[in-house]
Amino acid sequence: MKILVIHGPNLNLLGKREPDVYGKVSMKSIDEALKKQAKASRASLDIFQSNHEGEIVTKIQDAEGVYDAILMNPAAYTHTSVAIRDAVAAVKTPVVEVHLSNIYAREAFRRESLIAPVAAGQISGFGPKSYELGLLAALHLASSRKKK
Amino acid sequence: MKILVIHGPNLNLLGKREPDVYGKVSMKSIDEALKKQAKASRASLDIFQSNHEGEIVTKIQDAEGVYDAILMNPAAYTHTSVAIRDAVAAVKTPVVEVHLSNIYAREAFRRESLIAPVAAGQISGFGPKSYELGLLAALHLASSRKKK
Amino acid sequence: MKILVIHGPNLNLLGKREPDVYGKVSMKSIDEALKKQAKASRASLDIFQSNHEGEIVTKIQDAEGVYDAILMNPAAYTHTSVAIRDAVAAVKTPVVEVHLSNIYAREAFRRESLIAPVAAGQISGFGPKSYELGLLAALHLASSRKKK
Amino acid sequence: MKILVIHGPNLNLLGKREPDVYGKVSMKSIDEALKKQAKASRASLDIFQSNHEGEIVTKIQDAEGVYDAILMNPAAYTHTSVAIRDAVAAVKTPVVEVHLSNIYAREAFRRESLIAPVAAGQISGFGPKSYELGLLAALHLASSRKKK
Amino acid sequence: MKILVIHGPNLNLLGKREPDVYGKVSMKSIDEALKKQAKASRASLDIFQSNHEGEIVTKIQDAEGVYDAILMNPAAYTHTSVAIRDAVAAVKTPVVEVHLSNIYAREAFRRESLIAPVAAGQISGFGPKSYELGLLAALHLASSRKKK
Amino acid sequence: MKILVIHGPNLNLLGKREPDVYGKVSMKSIDEALKKQAKASRASLDIFQSNHEGEIVTKIQDAEGVYDAILMNPAAYTHTSVAIRDAVAAVKTPVVEVHLSNIYAREAFRRESLIAPVAAGQISGFGPKSYELGLLAALHLASSRKKK
Amino acid sequence: MKILVIHGPNLNLLGKREPDVYGKVSMKSIDEALKKQAKASRASLDIFQSNHEGEIVTKIQDAEGVYDAILMNPAAYTHTSVAIRDAVAAVKTPVVEVHLSNIYAREAFRRESLIAPVAAGQISGFGPKSYELGLLAALHLASSRKKK
Amino acid sequence: MKILVIHGPNLNLLGKREPDVYGKVSMKSIDEALKKQAKASRASLDIFQSNHEGEIVTKIQDAEGVYDAILMNPAAYTHTSVAIRDAVAAVKTPVVEVHLSNIYAREAFRRESLIAPVAAGQISGFGPKSYELGLLAALHLASSRKKK
Amino acid sequence: MKILVIHGPNLNLLGKREPDVYGKVSMKSIDEALKKQAKASRASLDIFQSNHEGEIVTKIQDAEGVYDAILMNPAAYTHTSVAIRDAVAAVKTPVVEVHLSNIYAREAFRRESLIAPVAAGQISGFGPKSYELGLLAALHLASSRKKK
Amino acid sequence: MKILVIHGPNLNLLGKREPDVYGKVSMKSIDEALKKQAKASRASLDIFQSNHEGEIVTKIQDAEGVYDAILMNPAAYTHTSVAIRDAVAAVKTPVVEVHLSNIYAREAFRRESLIAPVAAGQISGFGPKSYELGLLAALHLASSRKKK
Amino acid sequence: MKILVIHGPNLNLLGKREPDVYGKVSMKSIDEALKKQAKASRASLDIFQSNHEGEIVTKIQDAEGVYDAILMNPAAYTHTSVAIRDAVAAVKTPVVEVHLSNIYAREAFRRESLIAPVAAGQISGFGPKSYELGLLAALHLASSRKKK
Amino acid sequence: MKILVIHGPNLNLLGKREPDVYGKVSMKSIDEALKKQAKASRASLDIFQSNHEGEIVTKIQDAEGVYDAILMNPAAYTHTSVAIRDAVAAVKTPVVEVHLSNIYAREAFRRESLIAPVAAGQISGFGPKSYELGLLAALHLASSRKKK
Repeated sequence: MKILVIHGPNLNLLGKREPDVYGKVSMKSIDEALKKQAKASRASLDIFQSNHEGEIVTKIQDAEGVYDAILMNPAAYTHTSVAIRDAVAAVKTPVVEVHLSNIYAREAFRRESLIAPVAAGQISGFGPKSYELGLLAALHLASSRKKK
Repeated sequence: MKILVIHGPNLNLLGKREPDVYGKVSMKSIDEALKKQAKASRASLDIFQSNHEGEIVTKIQDAEGVYDAILMNPAAYTHTSVAIRDAVAAVKTPVVEVHLSNIYAREAFRRESLIAPVAAGQISGFGPKSYELGLLAALHLASSRKKK
Repeated sequence: MKILVIHGPNLNLLGKREPDVYGKVSMKSIDEALKKQAKASRASLDIFQSNHEGEIVTKIQDAEGVYDAILMNPAAYTHTSVAIRDAVAAVKTPVVEVHLSNIYAREAFRRESLIAPVAAGQISGFGPKSYELGLLAALHLASSRKKK
Repeated sequence: MKILVIHGPNLNLLGKREPDVYGKVSMKSIDEALKKQAKASRASLDIFQSNHEGEIVTKIQDAEGVYDAILMNPAAYTHTSVAIRDAVAAVKTPVVEVHLSNIYAREAFRRESLIAPVAAGQISGFGPKSYELGLLAALHLASSRKKK
Repeated sequence: MKILVIHGPNLNLLGKREPDVYGKVSMKSIDEALKKQAKASRASLDIFQSNHEGEIVTKIQDAEGVYDAILMNPAAYTHTSVAIRDAVAAVKTPVVEVHLSNIYAREAFRRESLIAPVAAGQISGFGPKSYELGLLAALHLASSRKKK
Repeated sequence: MKILVIHGPNLNLLGKREPDVYGKVSMKSIDEALKKQAKASRASLDIFQSNHEGEIVTKIQDAEGVYDAILMNPAAYTHTSVAIRDAVAAVKTPVVEVHLSNIYAREAFRRESLIAPVAAGQISGFGPKSYELGLLAALHLASSRKKK
Repeated sequence: MKILVIHGPNLNLLGKREPDVYGKVSMKSIDEALKKQAKASRASLDIFQSNHEGEIVTKIQDAEGVYDAILMNPAAYTHTSVAIRDAVAAVKTPVVEVHLSNIYAREAFRRESLIAPVAAGQISGFGPKSYELGLLAALHLASSRKKK
Repeated sequence: MKILVIHGPNLNLLGKREPDVYGKVSMKSIDEALKKQAKASRASLDIFQSNHEGEIVTKIQDAEGVYDAILMNPAAYTHTSVAIRDAVAAVKTPVVEVHLSNIYAREAFRRESLIAPVAAGQISGFGPKSYELGLLAALHLASSRKKK
Repeated sequence: MKILVIHGPNLNLLGKREPDVYGKVSMKSIDEALKKQAKASRASLDIFQSNHEGEIVTKIQDAEGVYDAILMNPAAYTHTSVAIRDAVAAVKTPVVEVHLSNIYAREAFRRESLIAPVAAGQISGFGPKSYELGLLAALHLASSRKKK
Repeated sequence: MKILVIHGPNLNLLGKREPDVYGKVSMKSIDEALKKQAKASRASLDIFQSNHEGEIVTKIQDAEGVYDAILMNPAAYTHTSVAIRDAVAAVKTPVVEVHLSNIYAREAFRRESLIAPVAAGQISGFGPKSYELGLLAALHLASSRKKK
Repeated sequence: MKILVIHGPNLNLLGKREPDVYGKVSMKSIDEALKKQAKASRASLDIFQSNHEGEIVTKIQDAEGVYDAILMNPAAYTHTSVAIRDAVAAVKTPVVEVHLSNIYAREAFRRESLIAPVAAGQISGFGPKSYELGLLAALHLASSRKKK
Repeated sequence: MKILVIHGPNLNLLGKREPDVYGKVSMKSIDEALKKQAKASRASLDIFQSNHEGEIVTKIQDAEGVYDAILMNPAAYTHTSVAIRDAVAAVKTPVVEVHLSNIYAREAFRRESLIAPVAAGQISGFGPKSYELGLLAALHLASSRKKK
């Protein structure tokens, strides 16, 4: 089972950036926790961070046939990128959307996700735990697909 | 660890009701799976279903000091009940909001949740798996609170 | 042929409540006229009034397999209840929506019906005659279903 | 008792036009059924179809003093014609608005009727049965007026 | 002079619920202060709290002819209940709407009251003092009516 | 000096139609008064009424080079006709828009005029006097143009 | 017959201010033309210009019982002043609203008049001729009132 | 205890202005009743009326340190004045907002108060009684502040 | 191959009407160019212009079975006619919508086309060249249909 | 070079009013700093503060031909005054709009400036430094104009 | 004659991506067809695909003076990119916007094109044929420019 | 003191691009003027231009701890980039937003800045002078920070 993790723009600053909103845990710690969890489930994990909308589009396109599921936190692009939405809709690989903060308790322009309608599902508001739950969901979707 | 599960209106029809939207699994099967999962985590579980907005409000009020977390699928009341929102905000018990279907891929009036801004977090779109992930999140929030 | 009639909130006050809007005929007179009409068509009729959204939801759920059609005036819940809408969509029993007054000639918030998109059809504006026409429509839908 | 039936634009195509929305019954069959029903009620019936907004306006104006009620399906003009609305408001002859399909279950721009606020009442969603119920309502309104 | 006091949903939690918004005074203390004030004005007082929209509707209906005025804090139902609005409009008993917090300084969805247009008047923002002022207003309205 | 007067849909009913809104003066009386006024100013007048949007469009097109100004009450088409607007914009003949009633004191959908932005000016709310003032304005515009 | 003319803010700059929008005629020339026209109709005229909303409110209040009609160009306050609207509604003296430019052909925020719904009527778009037509309308309204 | 009463624009016309909306009681009678009520509470009262937004702003600014509370009916400026709102927010003196009519039962543009979010509280809809209740509230706020 | 060309209202004025928006080419020249182009493709062409909404509706209805495709510039009716939209949806003949000007670079109310969602496709902004490209598209659609 | 500085309503309270939003510097200190800066640039400076919209309108009108540029903080009138906007547009003297706080980081109704579209430019968010930068901009615009 | 073809994000997946929306033809086939068509018209063609908004901006900037026209399908960036819009407006090279699907028959957020108001024209809904028609339009625009 | 200057997309075309909107000064001239001004203030300056949203995000992230302030003209990304907004909010380095043109006098979609609410302040409308004033503001903010 192969899972691709995509971190959107500014997530490389995690832990330093607005810690009262996003917490003090760094992206590196999250990645390590995910790797352990994947190992325990005998799944392999590739991790990718980018501030570029176009690079994320290309990464999703290239995932088809290579990965069994994608775990993505699109960050700021959640609310503005039709291109990432189209890429998600274009590939058969299921995508689980995760958010650290509860986006529905924030500014108006952060309450609409362009990605959610084409994602398999969404998990938001549990801090780093959102990623852990998201990986469980991704593995679940991946194994359901294999059975078909 | 004690968890309260609340099923909102019409969820008692699960499995029979619009199966192409909500799937063929009944509420009873979901409840049994949740009980097993709880047992494995040494948590106890109470389950409650109601079609009445007022009964759900009262149930949430009474949960404080009795339960460590609430796992709730508010169903139709997700979109119309300020009273349930106020009850969630009034109690200290953390609430995890779950949905079987991806509410963001449905009709416009189902895309806004009045509950989400006051819930701890939200999980939507993974079918019965949403409840399982939700219970994990609820247990996580409950044990974080105990530590404090 | 069995038909269920549901009167929504405040309809028990009919005849006394704002008579220039809703007329002077009482709910009791309407019910008696409907019973006579049903008898003439050899149909049986059960009648139910409630001010509780949840009770109406339950009543609709329980109608499946017992009644051949539902004749409902959802009154104020027409404009606010997603739960009743979901119940109507959940059962196979066809629902005819009726209104005494012409809801499209009234205040803005009364001009949208959440029920109409899932009802079989709607009749509005003919006073007590709306119920009589509604019963005809309900019997028509019920017999069409029997033939299939 | 004299009733005028007005069919709005494109209704002459009924049966051929989008049969999954409007059914397979032709305007001619509807007209014949209405004539039989009228005869049984000892009422006379004139029927008129036009694709022109202006012709329908003139027809409504000329109905006053000649017909006891109008049964009209304004079709597309339901949503765009203030001129037909003004004509309906200008004459004392009561107008019953009917629709074959449930307009509230369709595209957003079809969910508002400019005619409904000035019509006596509205019946929508019962297929050709809408006309039959509408004729009953029209005869009812006509005889109520005569009594005054 | 008989006055009915109605407390809407979640007001039974007053004093514990979000004390920075609603203050630390309990519903019980408010009720006792109201009773004293009523006694001093030689008025009798009945007090009712419910989390159920339907129960409040029924209570208002039954007030006609029994009470001279109603003092109501509809809480969350202020913003969602057309059924309570219809009940207020249906009875002749005047209704004074009160709010502890200044609802116009809060979230957007709390700034519109469905009840206000049919209430006699509204008092909002003075904490428990709002109830005291409201009772004065209710007694004033009740005695004005008696004089007519 | 030649002036064309255009009366829009339903104005032929003037005097009979909703007299509390539009007054008791008939279109015929208005026309006679306008003719006298024109004669006194040594202007000739042609008058045209139609319920058809298309006929009014054609009439405006044909006015160019024949009439010096147009005096038009577009009635219901004021609010819905882009075609009449385009015709007004297409011809060089100046158009004075008049209304009997004050359209800004009426229903929301009557408060916007599609014609006003392309008309030379607008006069509304003075009853039949609106036409008289409108003819003065039209003659003024016509003579200003001649001078150029 | 006594008429009060009110010029709103910035009209004292007429002729110099944005001449491509408002023309090259000064307020003084307009006033002189109005005086001549009044004299010919044996009416007396008082003229007032102010940049202060409050002064215009007071002037309108004081007009009742002194003047037979008001001719007002509220200029910028057309779109923002509820206080002037209330003053117009408070006095029985009829108010004719005039505008030099066609306000419906300008920026969005200039297309709505708060004054129009309470004015007797409105004339807009004929340059200085708007005032002349407005005085005719004001004299007409004043003499109609006298007759009653 | 010193209280400042501010009456906004057009309130000097009270009793004469639209009596079916605002009643027949004059501003003078209200002022006298307030003075008596103040005397009974051993409070002194200054009263000020203005049609000028700027004068009201200045009056509020000057109230700080001189008065213990302000009782204000901002009338039309309720809906349009950010400057008065800023003055209210700038001073520490608490402001009680009152309205004679129930502003929530009136035209749309009167249903939003720019002042309410910065006022201490609001009382609306009880006619002259609104002022009496408002003075009670103002005295209550003033004495609470003194205690601190 | 038979193609029907429909020109909507005011297009008969082409070349004279607002030449800076629509160019100086007349409808006649466009028609001649289209005929030549059709001849070269061995297709026959009928051309129809009308200012009447109803006539265009009828023309589209009658096209089914007679023409292989329709090339239509609905002009002003693009933005207001649900009746033409319904006619286009009712017939199987494919419709190509063309516009001389780029409607998306114009006034707000011209940027929405009611026809576009039911047309086969749309070409806008190339002046008379839009018709030529439209005819190519129509011939393409017509021959694709023949092959099926 | 002569520059006019205009301070809008409530700015006379600067330093005392909501110091966490507007800082602790008084209007007087700002004025002194501006005078020094002007002296250093050999420019003369007149300063004016008013709470009255009408006085500010008049001041701007009178500035033409007397001052070379205006430096204005319209404060609350930024968001509500069409009259000040019209005055700015009416004079040829260039206007620089300044704000102490970043108006785009505040309440929704403060984020739109009616003045900005007609001002030469805008500077916002740098506290008292905004005035200093504004004076530089004003001098720059004034000297550019002189050169022409 | 030199033409630049730009394919926006995800178009490299054409044929595989959502084939029921976009068809089964690959980008490669489209490119080959375009090259043949260009050769036949003696035009040269460069083709460029990118998922990066910034690369497309740069490509358009560099086109000026090198290419005679641009044929672009901006795909997802159609609806979100002001930067591409600015680039199109910045260069003198005319841009023809094409879409495979009829964007006006799709989701709401795809019905608005930010590019259309600055493009020369738009062609949408004819599948791969849209490109062919677009190339014709581009060649037409290019040769018109050469003639000037 | 070290300052980073960021030019957003299309600014490299300055002087050539739409010169009536943006002026004839090139980016190069602006950069040279800024360098001279910086030198005079003994500050060092780095300048960066990019058409890529992602590159700008990364540049801002990397500025923290290296530069004392950022001077940025985000150009088209002002209105669409949540990612740049998040980067600005994530770093402690203060950001001064500048615009050449007065963005509030342009198209509707250019009047909202996503960056402004998280920037320190904004300067818009003074042409190349905006940069000069912006650099002064940036140096001011940088030195204020140093003092803390």
